[in-house]
Amino acid sequence: MNTPAFRVESDLLGERNVPAEAYYGVHTLRAVENFQISGTPISAYPNLILALAAVKQAAAEANAELGLLPVPLRDAIIAACHEVREGKFHDQFVVDTIQGGAGTSTNMNANEVICNRALEILGHQRGEYAYLHPNEHVNMAQSTNDVYPTALRIATFFAIEHLLEAMEVLRAAFNDKAVEFAGLLKLGRTQLQDAVPMTLGQEFSTYAVMLEEDMARLREASALIREVNLGATAIGTGITAHPDYAAKATAALSRITGIELLTAPNLVEATQDCGAFVQISGVLKRIAVKLSKTCNDLRLLSSGPRAGFGEINLPPMQAGSSIMPGKVNPVIPEVVNQVAFEVFGNDTVVTFAAEAGQLQLNAFEPVIAASLFRSFKHLTNGCFTLAEKCIKGITANPERLRETIERSIALVTALNPIIGYKNATAVAAEAFANNTNIRDVVLRRKLMTEAELNEALRPEALTQPRVYPSNPPPKSGPAS
Amino acid sequence: MNTPAFRVESDLLGERNVPAEAYYGVHTLRAVENFQISGTPISAYPNLILALAAVKQAAAEANAELGLLPVPLRDAIIAACHEVREGKFHDQFVVDTIQGGAGTSTNMNANEVICNRALEILGHQRGEYAYLHPNEHVNMAQSTNDVYPTALRIATFFAIEHLLEAMEVLRAAFNDKAVEFAGLLKLGRTQLQDAVPMTLGQEFSTYAVMLEEDMARLREASALIREVNLGATAIGTGITAHPDYAAKATAALSRITGIELLTAPNLVEATQDCGAFVQISGVLKRIAVKLSKTCNDLRLLSSGPRAGFGEINLPPMQAGSSIMPGKVNPVIPEVVNQVAFEVFGNDTVVTFAAEAGQLQLNAFEPVIAASLFRSFKHLTNGCFTLAEKCIKGITANPERLRETIERSIALVTALNPIIGYKNATAVAAEAFANNTNIRDVVLRRKLMTEAELNEALRPEALTQPRVYPSNPPPKSGPAS
Amino acid sequence: MNTPAFRVESDLLGERNVPAEAYYGVHTLRAVENFQISGTPISAYPNLILALAAVKQAAAEANAELGLLPVPLRDAIIAACHEVREGKFHDQFVVDTIQGGAGTSTNMNANEVICNRALEILGHQRGEYAYLHPNEHVNMAQSTNDVYPTALRIATFFAIEHLLEAMEVLRAAFNDKAVEFAGLLKLGRTQLQDAVPMTLGQEFSTYAVMLEEDMARLREASALIREVNLGATAIGTGITAHPDYAAKATAALSRITGIELLTAPNLVEATQDCGAFVQISGVLKRIAVKLSKTCNDLRLLSSGPRAGFGEINLPPMQAGSSIMPGKVNPVIPEVVNQVAFEVFGNDTVVTFAAEAGQLQLNAFEPVIAASLFRSFKHLTNGCFTLAEKCIKGITANPERLRETIERSIALVTALNPIIGYKNATAVAAEAFANNTNIRDVVLRRKLMTEAELNEALRPEALTQPRVYPSNPPPKSGPAS
Amino acid sequence: MNTPAFRVESDLLGERNVPAEAYYGVHTLRAVENFQISGTPISAYPNLILALAAVKQAAAEANAELGLLPVPLRDAIIAACHEVREGKFHDQFVVDTIQGGAGTSTNMNANEVICNRALEILGHQRGEYAYLHPNEHVNMAQSTNDVYPTALRIATFFAIEHLLEAMEVLRAAFNDKAVEFAGLLKLGRTQLQDAVPMTLGQEFSTYAVMLEEDMARLREASALIREVNLGATAIGTGITAHPDYAAKATAALSRITGIELLTAPNLVEATQDCGAFVQISGVLKRIAVKLSKTCNDLRLLSSGPRAGFGEINLPPMQAGSSIMPGKVNPVIPEVVNQVAFEVFGNDTVVTFAAEAGQLQLNAFEPVIAASLFRSFKHLTNGCFTLAEKCIKGITANPERLRETIERSIALVTALNPIIGYKNATAVAAEAFANNTNIRDVVLRRKLMTEAELNEALRPEALTQPRVYPSNPPPKSGPAS
Repeated sequence: MNTPAFRVESDLLGERNVPAEAYYGVHTLRAVENFQISGTPISAYPNLILALAAVKQAAAEANAELGLLPVPLRDAIIAACHEVREGKFHDQFVVDTIQGGAGTSTNMNANEVICNRALEILGHQRGEYAYLHPNEHVNMAQSTNDVYPTALRIATFFAIEHLLEAMEVLRAAFNDKAVEFAGLLKLGRTQLQDAVPMTLGQEFSTYAVMLEEDMARLREASALIREVNLGATAIGTGITAHPDYAAKATAALSRITGIELLTAPNLVEATQDCGAFVQISGVLKRIAVKLSKTCNDLRLLSSGPRAGFGEINLPPMQAGSSIMPGKVNPVIPEVVNQVAFEVFGNDTVVTFAAEAGQLQLNAFEPVIAASLFRSFKHLTNGCFTLAEKCIKGITANPERLRETIERSIALVTALNPIIGYKNATAVAAEAFANNTNIRDVVLRRKLMTEAELNEALRPEALTQPRVYPSNPPPKSGPAS
Repeated sequence: MNTPAFRVESDLLGERNVPAEAYYGVHTLRAVENFQISGTPISAYPNLILALAAVKQAAAEANAELGLLPVPLRDAIIAACHEVREGKFHDQFVVDTIQGGAGTSTNMNANEVICNRALEILGHQRGEYAYLHPNEHVNMAQSTNDVYPTALRIATFFAIEHLLEAMEVLRAAFNDKAVEFAGLLKLGRTQLQDAVPMTLGQEFSTYAVMLEEDMARLREASALIREVNLGATAIGTGITAHPDYAAKATAALSRITGIELLTAPNLVEATQDCGAFVQISGVLKRIAVKLSKTCNDLRLLSSGPRAGFGEINLPPMQAGSSIMPGKVNPVIPEVVNQVAFEVFGNDTVVTFAAEAGQLQLNAFEPVIAASLFRSFKHLTNGCFTLAEKCIKGITANPERLRETIERSIALVTALNPIIGYKNATAVAAEAFANNTNIRDVVLRRKLMTEAELNEALRPEALTQPRVYPSNPPPKSGPAS
Repeated sequence: MNTPAFRVESDLLGERNVPAEAYYGVHTLRAVENFQISGTPISAYPNLILALAAVKQAAAEANAELGLLPVPLRDAIIAACHEVREGKFHDQFVVDTIQGGAGTSTNMNANEVICNRALEILGHQRGEYAYLHPNEHVNMAQSTNDVYPTALRIATFFAIEHLLEAMEVLRAAFNDKAVEFAGLLKLGRTQLQDAVPMTLGQEFSTYAVMLEEDMARLREASALIREVNLGATAIGTGITAHPDYAAKATAALSRITGIELLTAPNLVEATQDCGAFVQISGVLKRIAVKLSKTCNDLRLLSSGPRAGFGEINLPPMQAGSSIMPGKVNPVIPEVVNQVAFEVFGNDTVVTFAAEAGQLQLNAFEPVIAASLFRSFKHLTNGCFTLAEKCIKGITANPERLRETIERSIALVTALNPIIGYKNATAVAAEAFANNTNIRDVVLRRKLMTEAELNEALRPEALTQPRVYPSNPPPKSGPAS
Repeated sequence: MNTPAFRVESDLLGERNVPAEAYYGVHTLRAVENFQISGTPISAYPNLILALAAVKQAAAEANAELGLLPVPLRDAIIAACHEVREGKFHDQFVVDTIQGGAGTSTNMNANEVICNRALEILGHQRGEYAYLHPNEHVNMAQSTNDVYPTALRIATFFAIEHLLEAMEVLRAAFNDKAVEFAGLLKLGRTQLQDAVPMTLGQEFSTYAVMLEEDMARLREASALIREVNLGATAIGTGITAHPDYAAKATAALSRITGIELLTAPNLVEATQDCGAFVQISGVLKRIAVKLSKTCNDLRLLSSGPRAGFGEINLPPMQAGSSIMPGKVNPVIPEVVNQVAFEVFGNDTVVTFAAEAGQLQLNAFEPVIAASLFRSFKHLTNGCFTLAEKCIKGITANPERLRETIERSIALVTALNPIIGYKNATAVAAEAFANNTNIRDVVLRRKLMTEAELNEALRPEALTQPRVYPSNPPPKSGPAS
C-alpha cells in the first residue's frame, strides 16, 4: 500500500491538501502561497524560531498550572518545543519574512509545527487535530498579537547579546592598537586641515571608546525589551485568558529564556506600541554612524600608498583591481561602510512601519522584525570582520607621522598663550607663504628664545593640557 | 589514482588551494572568505550574472576585431559566456552581495568562471591560465570600474522590463474594476471627512491611472541607463584600451543584449557618477508611495465588516487570526505596504552609498546594486501578488455605498452656485445639528423648489462639471 | 562732528569696515557674507545663545581662578554674559544657522559680542581689542571644538525640559479623556477589521501611556548630554589649556546652568563624537512616530460625520473647505502629523551629518543643531497645540459606539474557550453570511444556553481577562 | 471720531474681530491662531504667493468669460491680483507654512486678501463681502484641492528656473577651471588608493558634466508639473464648475504665467496624486548627492596644507579657528555639504507626506511644499555660494601634482598590455617593498627597454586610450 502524498486539512476557506511529510498545516500552506515576495523564509532568523518555541512552552506551562490544559497535552507540547529549540524543525518554518497579517502566519506556522510534532509524541498522526489542536491547545490563551511581539523581543534580546560580543572583539582590537601606537606623535586634523599634535594611540583609542559607549547604550536599550505583553491576547484586554495567566506565562518565559521579563503595565498600550523597536533601531543607527565614520577615517589614514595620507597600512586582503597590478584596496572598511548604509535604510523601514500602525495593532511588525534582524546580523558580522580582517593587522608608518609634525604650521597654536593670537597668526602666515616652519619664523621674529621654544614644543607638552607661564598682558598691538 | 581535491592558484598575496571542482579561482575564494556579511551570493540576482556574461562576450568580440585577442581564445570565451547566460554556472557566482572593493570581486568571479569554462572548451584544465588568463584575456581592455557599472545598467534594464509587466497586470486589474464599478455612486472623502459624490468606478480608475503614469516615468528612467562607460577602464581615461575599443565593445553589447546602448560622452565623469541609480531609486520610491497609498485606501474602504467603511470586500485569502474565529484581514495590501516601506529604506541606502563616492570612483556600488535589485524584485512580486490575490477578487457593497450618499451633508456643495456659500453653510449646520438631511433643510428654508432640488442632485450632475443657471447676484446678506 | 558709520577691524585676510553700532566684529561680518543660505540667524534658537554665554562665563571664571585672566577682565566678561543671557543682544547673533566651519562663526559671534559689550563696561570703545580680545580673553583656553558642542548640549537640555512640559500637558489631556470615556464600551480593531470589545477609555489611556513612556525615554536621553568636552580645546588634547581648567570650567558651568555636568572621560573621543545627538534625534523620532500614529487614529475615529467611523468628535477649529460649506476637518491632528514628518526628515539630516564627521572633528554640527532644534521647537508647539486645540474638546458618540458592539461578529472570540475555535469559526461565518448576529447563531445551533451567553457576554467580562469554566475536551470534531 | 481697531467677520464657528487694517479675514485669523508651529509664514516663499494670485486671476477671467462672474468684479479681482504679484501684500500672507487642512488656510488667505483689496478698488470697505465674496467670487468654481496643487506646481516651476540659473553659474565656474587645469597631469585615485594618471582638468570637467546632466534631469522634471488639475474642484469631479471652465482657466493661467500648462487627463487622479512632487524631490536629491560628493572631493584635494593631499587651494574666506592661528578651513564646501544633507531630510519628509495621502486628497501637501521650497532655496543659494566664493578662486599646486605621478606605483597599469598582468603585479610589489619606482624595476628586470618605457609612459599616452603593439602571447608563466 502506498503512503499518501498528502493529508487534507481545512480552515475557514475550505479544504486543502497538505504535503504528508509537512509538520506545518493548512494555515502555513496558504501563507506560503499568499506571500511570495522576498523568497527568504522566517527560518533565516533562527533566534525568532527559538523565541516562538519558548513562548509556546511558557503558555502551555501556565495553562496547565491553571488547570486549563491537560497535563499529557502540556508535556507533549513542551517536548515538541524543546525539539524546535534544538533546531530540529527549522526547515518547517517556511513562511516569507515579508508577510501581511501582523505575524499571524508566523504564529500559525509555529502552532502547526509544534502541534503536529506533539501529536506524533502523543502517538497520533500529523493532522489529527481532534487530539491536540494548533489553535485551541498550542495557541491557548494566546493571540498572534501578544505572542509575536513577545517573541520578537526575546529574539532581539539574543541578537543584542551577540552583537555585544562582536563589538567587544572590535573594541579590544582597537584598544590593542591604541596601546601599540601610544608613542607615535602625529598631527591631528580638523575639517581635513592640519591642526594640532596628538598621538596615533590617542586616535585609535577614540575608536575603542566610541564602541564602549555604544555598547553601554545598547545594554540600556536591551532593558526596553524586557517588558512584554504576553497575556494581552487580541488587543490587550486579555480576552479568553485566565486572570492569572499573564503573570504565570511571563514567569515561565523568564525561566525558559533566562531573561528577566516583566508584564507591561498597560497591555492595551503595549500591544499596539512599536516604540521600543524604533528606539533600538535608533541605537543601531548610532552604532552604524560611528562604525562608518571610523571606516572613513581608516580609509583616509591609509590612503596612498604614495599620493595619500599614508599614515597607517591596512593588511592586504585580496588583489584590489582586475586591471591595476599590485593595487590593494581597503575592502574591509568598505564593506563595513556598506553595512552601515544598510542599517540606515533599515531604520527608515522601521520608522515607516511603526508610524503606520493603526488603532489597537501594528500590522507591519513583520517588516520591522525583518529589518531589525538584518541590521543585527550584518552589524555583528561587520564588527567581527572588521576586527579580524583589518584592525588586528594594521601597522603604522612612523616616518610619515613624524614628518606631519615637523612641517606643521598649526604647531603655532601651542605658542598662543605665550605670544598671543595675533602674533601667532602672523607667524603662521609667514611660515605658509615662505614654505618654512614655525620654529624658524618665531626665532627670526625674536618672539621667543630657542630654549623657550624647545620647552614649549616638547611632545609631551603638545598632547595634553599644561601650565603656561602666567598670562601676560595681551601682546596684540592696539586694535586695528 | 585519486583525483586531487583542489588545485593551487596564486595572486599577489601568495598561493591558495582552490576546490578542484570550482570554476571560480583564487580571487573569488579570497572574496568569499573576506565578505561574510549577508550570506546572499550575487547569484540571487540572476540578471546581474547574465549582464556580466554579456559584457565579457562583447569585450572579447571587440578585442578580437581589433586584432588583440586571438580568434580561438575569443571563440572559447564566447562559448563560455553563452553557457553562463543559459544559467549553467549560477552556482559558481558565490561572492556576497555586500562586498568591499567596488565590485572587483564580482568582476573577478565572472572572469574566473568564464576563463575556466573556456579553458575546458579549449581542451585544457581549469586553472591552466598560461593558455587563457582571467585578467589578460577575459578582462582584456576592461576594468571593474567600467565592466561593473555597465553590467548593473543592463541588469537594471531587464529589471525595469519585468517590473513594467507586473505593473501592467495590476493596472489592468484596477481598470477592469473601474469599468465594473462605473455605475456605483458613493461619497468621496477628503481628509477622511465626507465630501462630494463620485462613483466607485472613478475611485478605482485613479489607481489604474496612477500606475499608468508611474509606468511612463519608469520608461523614461530606463533611458537614463542606456548610457554606459564601457571602455573607460580604470578611471575613464581608457588606459590599456585601444582607441576604437569603446565604440566596438558597446556596439557588440547592444547587439548581444538587444538594448540600444550609448557610450557616455565623458567617461571620467561616467565612471564615478551614480546619479542614474539615485534617480531610478527615486522613481521606484514614487511607485512605492502610490502603491502604499493605494493599499491604505483598500484597507480603509474594506474596513469592517460591520464597524468600518465596509464599501468593498477584499477576497479572503487566509484565516486572519489565531484567536478571533472568522476574522479575515487585508493581508495582501498589508504585505504590499511593507514592500513599499522596504523600497523607502533601500532608497535611503542608495542615497548614502551614492553620496559616499570619492574622487574617480564610487566604491559602494555593490550595496547600491543589492538595494536596487531587492526593490525591483519585491515591487515586481508585490504588483503581481496584489493583482492576482486581491484586486481581481474585489466586490462592492452597493447598499452601503448608496447609504453614504443619502445621508450626506456635503451634498450641499452642489447647491453652492445656486444658493451661495453662506446659505449653504447654514443649511449644512442645521442638517448636522438636527440629524436630518440637506434636502429637507433646503425645502424647509424655501431656498429652492423640490423640482430644482431634484434637478440639482441628479447623480450624473454630481460627478462631473455642469452648467448652472447664470450666476445670480450673491445671496449672502450684508457683511457681518 | 559726525559719528563714523563704521570701525575698522582686521583678521588674517585683511581689514574690513564693521558697522559702528555692531557688537559683533570682523569674523562675524565675514561669516554673514559667506553663509547666505537659509536666512535664519542663530538667534532663532535662543537657548543656544544662552548656552554660549553660560560657557563663556564659566571659562572666564575658571581662567581667573587659575590666575590666567585678570579679575577686572573677568568681571567685565561675566557682566556681559549676564546681559546676553537676559536677551539684550539677541539681535547681534546674526550668522546663518546653516554655516561651514564647524560652528567657528557661531563661537566667534559670541566672542565678539561679549568682548565688545565687556569693553564698553570697562569704559572702552567697541573694537579696542588691545584692552580685551575676543580670542585671547573671551575665548581663553577654549576652542570652537569644545565650546560649541558643550553649548549645544546645554541648549538641548533646555529644549528637552520644555518639550517634557508640553508632553505632560498632552498626556494629562489624554488621561482626562481616558477617565471621562471609561464607561463607553466599543469594538476594538486590529488591521482595521472588527476585533474584540474594549472601552473608549482604554483606547485613550493608551495615548497617555505612550506619552508617559516617551517622556521616560526622553529623560534618559537627557542624561546622555550631561557629559561635556569643555577643556578639550582644539582636538581633545587640551592644548593651550591649564591642566585644572577642564574641571574648574565644567564645575562653573554646572553652577551657572543648574545642570549637573561631567567632563567626558576621553576628551579626544568626546570632541569628535556626535553619537548623543544621533540618539536624541532617534528618541525624538520615536516620540514623533507615536504622535503621528495617535493623530492617524484620531482622524480615523472621527471620520465622517456620516460616512465614516464617527465614534468621536474633534472640536471644530475653522471652516474646513473653501468650497464645501459646513465641512469641518481634523486640522489639528493633520498639522501634528506634518510635524512628525518633519522630525523624521530632521533625523535623516542628523544621520548624514553625524556620519560625515572626519578624524578629530565633525564639521557638520551646525546642521545637526539646526535640525535638532527645529524638531524640538515643532514637537513642543505640536504637543501644546494638540492638547489645547483638540484633545481637550473631544466628545464621544455613545450610540455609535454601542452599535459597533451589538452588530459585531468578532464577539464570538469571547466564546472560544467555551465552544472551541472551530465551532466559533462556523458561527462567525454563518452570522456574516446571513447578516445576523453571534447571539442568534449560537442559540440556533444550541451551542450555549441563553443564560450562559448572557454571562459570557457581560461587558465587564469582555474587556479584561476572566476565569472560564475549566477547559473541556476540545469540541472540534475529528480532523478534516 | 476714532477709526475702529477692528471689524467683525463671521464663519461657521461664529463672529470674530479682525484687525481693521488687515486685508486677510476671519478664516486667516483662525488659521493663524490654530497653527503656531514653525513661526514661518507662507510669505517666506514668495513664488507661492505669486502663483496663487495667478491662479485667482485665471479663474476670474474664465468665470467672466463663461458669464458667471460680472465684469466689474472680474476687473477688480484682476487688479488686486496684479498688486499681489507685484509684492504689495506679502505681509498679509500670514498663515504658518506648517498647517493642517490641506492648504485651505493658504487658499483662504489668498481669497481674503484679494477680495478685500478688490473691494477697496471697487470703492467699498474691507469686509463688505456682500459686494464681493472671498468664497463665492474670488474662489468661484474653485476648491483648495485644485487651486493649491496648481499653485504649488507654478511656484515649483519658477523655483526650478532659478535653481537652473544657479547651477549654470556653478557649471561654468567648474568648466573654466577644467580649461585652466587641462595641462596639469596628476594621479587619479580609486577607493582613495593611488590609481592611474589623469589631468586635473579632467577631474574638474567631471564636476561640470555632472551639473550639466543634472540640469537636463531637472528640465525633464519640470515637464512633470506642467499638468495641472485646475477645474477639478473638490475631488476631481468638477462639482460647481462649468464644463468649459477647466480648459478656459488653464489657458488663462498659461497666458498669465508664461508656462505651457495642460489639464490633467483624469482629474480625480490628479487631485490626489503627489507623485510629481516625490519625483522632483528625488531629482533634487540626485543633485544634492552630486554636490555633496563634489564638496567632499574639494575638501579632500585641498586637505593640508602640509599633511594632506594638498593638490589644490581653496580661496580663504575667513579665519578658520578661534584657537589655531592661521588655520583656514574649507567652509564653503562644508556649508554646501550641509545643504545637501538638508535636501536628503526634506526628501524624507516629502516621502512620508506623500505616502500618507488618503482616498481623494492628500491633506499633507503644505509640508510637502515647505520642504520642497526649502530644498530649492538652499540648493540655489548653495550653488551660487559655491561658485562665487569657492570654485572661481581655486588654484592648483603643480609641484605636488607632478610628485604624485613620479612616485606612483600604479603607473605600471599602463604596461599591462605589454608585460602582462602577472609580471606587472610583481613589478608593483617590488617597487613598493623597496621604496623605489616602476621605471627602475622594469629596467632592472629587463622587461622593456628604456626607449620602450619612455614611449609607454608619455603623459599623452596615459590619459586616453591608445594603440598598443599587437597583443603578444601572454607572458605569464605556466599556471601556478
